Amino acid sequence: MNDILLVEKFKKKTGIDFENTQLLKESITHRSNGDSGSYERLEFLGDSILSFLTSLYLYKKNKDFSEGELSKKRSEIVNRENLAFVFDKLNLDEIIIADRKSLKTLPDSIKEDVVESIFGAIYLEKGLRGVKKFFKLLLKNSREISDEFYAKNQLQELSLVKFKKLPLFKTEVYSNEKFKCKVYLDGKYYAQSVGKTKKESEKKAAKNALKKIYKESV
Amino acid sequence: MNDILLVEKFKKKTGIDFENTQLLKESITHRSNGDSGSYERLEFLGDSILSFLTSLYLYKKNKDFSEGELSKKRSEIVNRENLAFVFDKLNLDEIIIADRKSLKTLPDSIKEDVVESIFGAIYLEKGLRGVKKFFKLLLKNSREISDEFYAKNQLQELSLVKFKKLPLFKTEVYSNEKFKCKVYLDGKYYAQSVGKTKKESEKKAAKNALKKIYKESV
Repeated sequence: MNDILLVEKFKKKTGIDFENTQLLKESITHRSNGDSGSYERLEFLGDSILSFLTSLYLYKKNKDFSEGELSKKRSEIVNRENLAFVFDKLNLDEIIIADRKSLKTLPDSIKEDVVESIFGAIYLEKGLRGVKKFFKLLLKNSREISDEFYAKNQLQELSLVKFKKLPLFKTEVYSNEKFKCKVYLDGKYYAQSVGKTKKESEKKAAKNALKKIYKESV
Repeated sequence: MNDILLVEKFKKKTGIDFENTQLLKESITHRSNGDSGSYERLEFLGDSILSFLTSLYLYKKNKDFSEGELSKKRSEIVNRENLAFVFDKLNLDEIIIADRKSLKTLPDSIKEDVVESIFGAIYLEKGLRGVKKFFKLLLKNSREISDEFYAKNQLQELSLVKFKKLPLFKTEVYSNEKFKCKVYLDGKYYAQSVGKTKKESEKKAAKNALKKIYKESV
């Protein structure tokens, strides 16, 4: 693929325009291609940028999350499986520069590396603002990951907008090792669920309440 | 300590001025202080910022380092011992908010956490540019860490400037498990050293050559 075509293809996939074609090429070149430089150093940089942007995003979005919850959520975004998933969604396979005889199908580890190294290249080319654009694309194309995690947040926001007050979560011990949570919005019972911890029961109940509201609003 | 005094003290130590006193306080408050909020969430954010800034700094500074060398070097900067060392150098102990009866001497783990959480707070207060200032302060106050790592780079730059050519490293097997390296600048012998690997002997020899040059130029 010639340079102009590569830049065009990349722009079509990501919305990002590269002037430094060499940098773009380095970020998508696997070492099996030979001695012309490969993505390892950019991956070192990009990995840390992705982790930073993910942390910042989660920190701002989830004011009531503990450090442990934030870490767990971060790992759901930056783990190998999700990055390989994003790689596939963006069809980055089409532009990878590698010895495709020995690498007919790319392993997830390479897909992960390339997504990370692209973060590095975009940062060097476009700065923080540019790389935030690519991060948004990554989020949009990520696997659907534990949306219960957000259910409580979403329900709170929704209840504040709709009723000007927070939802009420009433949680009680349900059986030996379980908790039951009931959710009330504006004083009215909406949904319930059972979970192994108080928190789990609340998240599940929030999710059920959201489902009900979405159904009502259709 | 009242808020104004805290902000002043922090500025004296770091050169950084906080308007959001609450944020600054959160970043230096250990959970032993009680329920008023502690640094854990900021530490989650700051840890990733520190890692990003360190990676960026090393990536730009060491164009000939492999990913492995960059990672090794990064861990020398962001590891617990060094961050605790920086904490002590900046006398941050004076401003920590904690139950000082149960925490008369702070363990390194808390010192590490606080340095990281301060990165988080400064980023939120001052953005990337502000937090880079604090990163420079961290580098300046870090332990002297394997400056041999940089000796070869420095010698190369110096030789290029002074003689318009690279230094010559002549390395040979010295004994059973050792290597000896001699350094020549502009064709003239400068220094030598012995090491367990070829690379180690070169780094040490480069360091010795640098010492000699610095002496000559005094």
